[in-house]
Amino acid sequence: MDDDVTFAVLGTGGIGRRALDVARHKGGLTPVAACDRNGVAVDHSGLDVDELLDATEGNIASGPEADGDTPATPESDYASDGGLASHASETSSEPRSDGGATAAEGGSVGDDGTASDGVKQAGEDAGIVASAQGEPTETPIDDVIAESDAIDAVLLALPNLEHDFIPRVAERFADADYGGVLVDVLKRSRVIGMLDDRTDRLEDSGITFVCGAGATPGFLTGAAALAAQSFVEVDSVEIWWGVGLKSGYEDNRGTVREDIAHLDGYDIERAREMSESEIEALIDEHGGRLEFRDMEHADDVLLERAGICDAEDVSVGGVLDVRSDEKPTTTTVRVTGTTFDGERGTNTFELDDATSMAANVNGPALGYLKAAVLRNRAGDYGVYGPADVMPSF
Amino acid sequence: MDDDVTFAVLGTGGIGRRALDVARHKGGLTPVAACDRNGVAVDHSGLDVDELLDATEGNIASGPEADGDTPATPESDYASDGGLASHASETSSEPRSDGGATAAEGGSVGDDGTASDGVKQAGEDAGIVASAQGEPTETPIDDVIAESDAIDAVLLALPNLEHDFIPRVAERFADADYGGVLVDVLKRSRVIGMLDDRTDRLEDSGITFVCGAGATPGFLTGAAALAAQSFVEVDSVEIWWGVGLKSGYEDNRGTVREDIAHLDGYDIERAREMSESEIEALIDEHGGRLEFRDMEHADDVLLERAGICDAEDVSVGGVLDVRSDEKPTTTTVRVTGTTFDGERGTNTFELDDATSMAANVNGPALGYLKAAVLRNRAGDYGVYGPADVMPSF
Repeated sequence: MDDDVTFAVLGTGGIGRRALDVARHKGGLTPVAACDRNGVAVDHSGLDVDELLDATEGNIASGPEADGDTPATPESDYASDGGLASHASETSSEPRSDGGATAAEGGSVGDDGTASDGVKQAGEDAGIVASAQGEPTETPIDDVIAESDAIDAVLLALPNLEHDFIPRVAERFADADYGGVLVDVLKRSRVIGMLDDRTDRLEDSGITFVCGAGATPGFLTGAAALAAQSFVEVDSVEIWWGVGLKSGYEDNRGTVREDIAHLDGYDIERAREMSESEIEALIDEHGGRLEFRDMEHADDVLLERAGICDAEDVSVGGVLDVRSDEKPTTTTVRVTGTTFDGERGTNTFELDDATSMAANVNGPALGYLKAAVLRNRAGDYGVYGPADVMPSF
Repeated sequence: MDDDVTFAVLGTGGIGRRALDVARHKGGLTPVAACDRNGVAVDHSGLDVDELLDATEGNIASGPEADGDTPATPESDYASDGGLASHASETSSEPRSDGGATAAEGGSVGDDGTASDGVKQAGEDAGIVASAQGEPTETPIDDVIAESDAIDAVLLALPNLEHDFIPRVAERFADADYGGVLVDVLKRSRVIGMLDDRTDRLEDSGITFVCGAGATPGFLTGAAALAAQSFVEVDSVEIWWGVGLKSGYEDNRGTVREDIAHLDGYDIERAREMSESEIEALIDEHGGRLEFRDMEHADDVLLERAGICDAEDVSVGGVLDVRSDEKPTTTTVRVTGTTFDGERGTNTFELDDATSMAANVNGPALGYLKAAVLRNRAGDYGVYGPADVMPSF
């Protein structure tokens, strides 16, 4: 079987850029296309990742969601696809608040990067067009789709726009009869349901879609699925993450704001309406560390659809420290269940504190991508979660 | 996709019996055939597992390898297939010593059961023929192959006969144009190579083979493959198991003898030649606990073929306590590597001491079996290791 995999990255914010970076260290992965809001770079013999990353460092093409100082580009297919309102209309100068993204160990675009919040420079000259490999375009996603015959897999590292943005992008690939792999790193349960609704359409096109394939959901969902193998009944899955975000704090202010919505006494609306100084006061009050319990993460839906346990038996929480790059707590998955011979126990998966959120998002995202390409080449189409690329329960 | 899986078990020793037992607790798995040396039971609407287990309890049809008081049945396809010498010819009244089986956390037939050593009753009336569902036969494997059109998957839980026994059985399924799943729980590296040599033949037939799919290799190999996802370079994989074998000791005397071959100053020949009282003396000397380092387990080959690390970077060891059912040490997988951003760390997977070897062999074996059936139905054929049913590295 041909092991070489060509892939594209849609979105070159934090996750997209780091995926390109991590792929340089992995065997058999050739990035052949990347796009952002303003531009596209395509080279079927392999992009020059060094040049692309250097040219876009601190220079990410993004919408106006974080700083509001540039107009949306409604003509772009990033923002104007059949009712996908530009993010500006939702949030104006407020950070976005779309109900699911967090700074949790892994997952959402923006979690560990600058996709939508850390805009260092915006406008038509920002991002990929600043690279010698980049071309300006008003239809970056369509431009990648036009090249997709020669692309084995596409990592959707797009900003968190409307909830149905990723499913709609997937549909556009299906409309073009794409027969390859799509992977996203989102974590909102409702997006996964929207993808499930499109399973037939994606299958007909020959698409293998692995959804929620970052750290959590993703890496840790897979760990839970594996740890469950000792048991015939799973009582609980506890996912607990630690993230140190000192150097990444400026890039993740909007994400931290969304995390605040998960704190006791807060919700999305309240977090959205807080001023920057109110947020700083809250963070001060907590000494820079925010602890979260019972977060809305799609690990629950993804483990339930894999037959491992009920969604309600899954809990996700963690600690975010915005004043240290050290993890404030160790990222751990604990799966408690009962064996066939009636013993109750807890299997544990623990990530070293030295492994960064970026490592734990992008390694697994590319790992799931490569695994999905092998499936796709074998003719295995449809929508999978991370727990489906594992021994079954 | 149809989630219901019909399966057969070849061999109803420790692993075969427990696989049937564990399957009762799992959804979507219907056992439709089982065989041992003397008999076969087939019911395409589902075997009565309660009856089968009751009838064969302490009554396992086996060859003469452990007690030597019954003749081999050379006419059986268990023992006389193209040069597969009956085990008796190797060992006469000595326990077998075929160079790889151990009491380690999971894997070989005989590890956690009585497939070949714990013969409580032998002869033509033993085993499956004692069940109301059983029929005597001289060609049990061929009888199952004859029914295999209606069998999605076959768990090869056969005694450790010749090293190429499992590959030859696989070949017989291919000769019959079987298009389904085969899973084994062996752990000898050379068997995996022999299966790899037969990949084309198995693929042509439409067989998806997951080899080494017990605990180690198997469950713990998969855990290592997953834990590696944080890293771009894996420096070492350390698999460390604990097994408490007090109540299972009598059934596993031959297996313990083979473990002794892994001790410093011992090898297979020396262990084979030891008398029972010499073995007891050795065990006494160690207070009932034997500790093993650098065991020959196929985890190394299986991780290398999945691209995760070099075989030589994998170490397997553990502690066997024959005087307690409590585990003498916690079964742990430690994967040390370097992240894309240059950090070195160790991710850890740990099984609760309450999870028995039997739970950790049979849960994963059936989990890999189910996963393989989904692959097979999608048209994905060939030989896979446990690390291949995971995100790729």
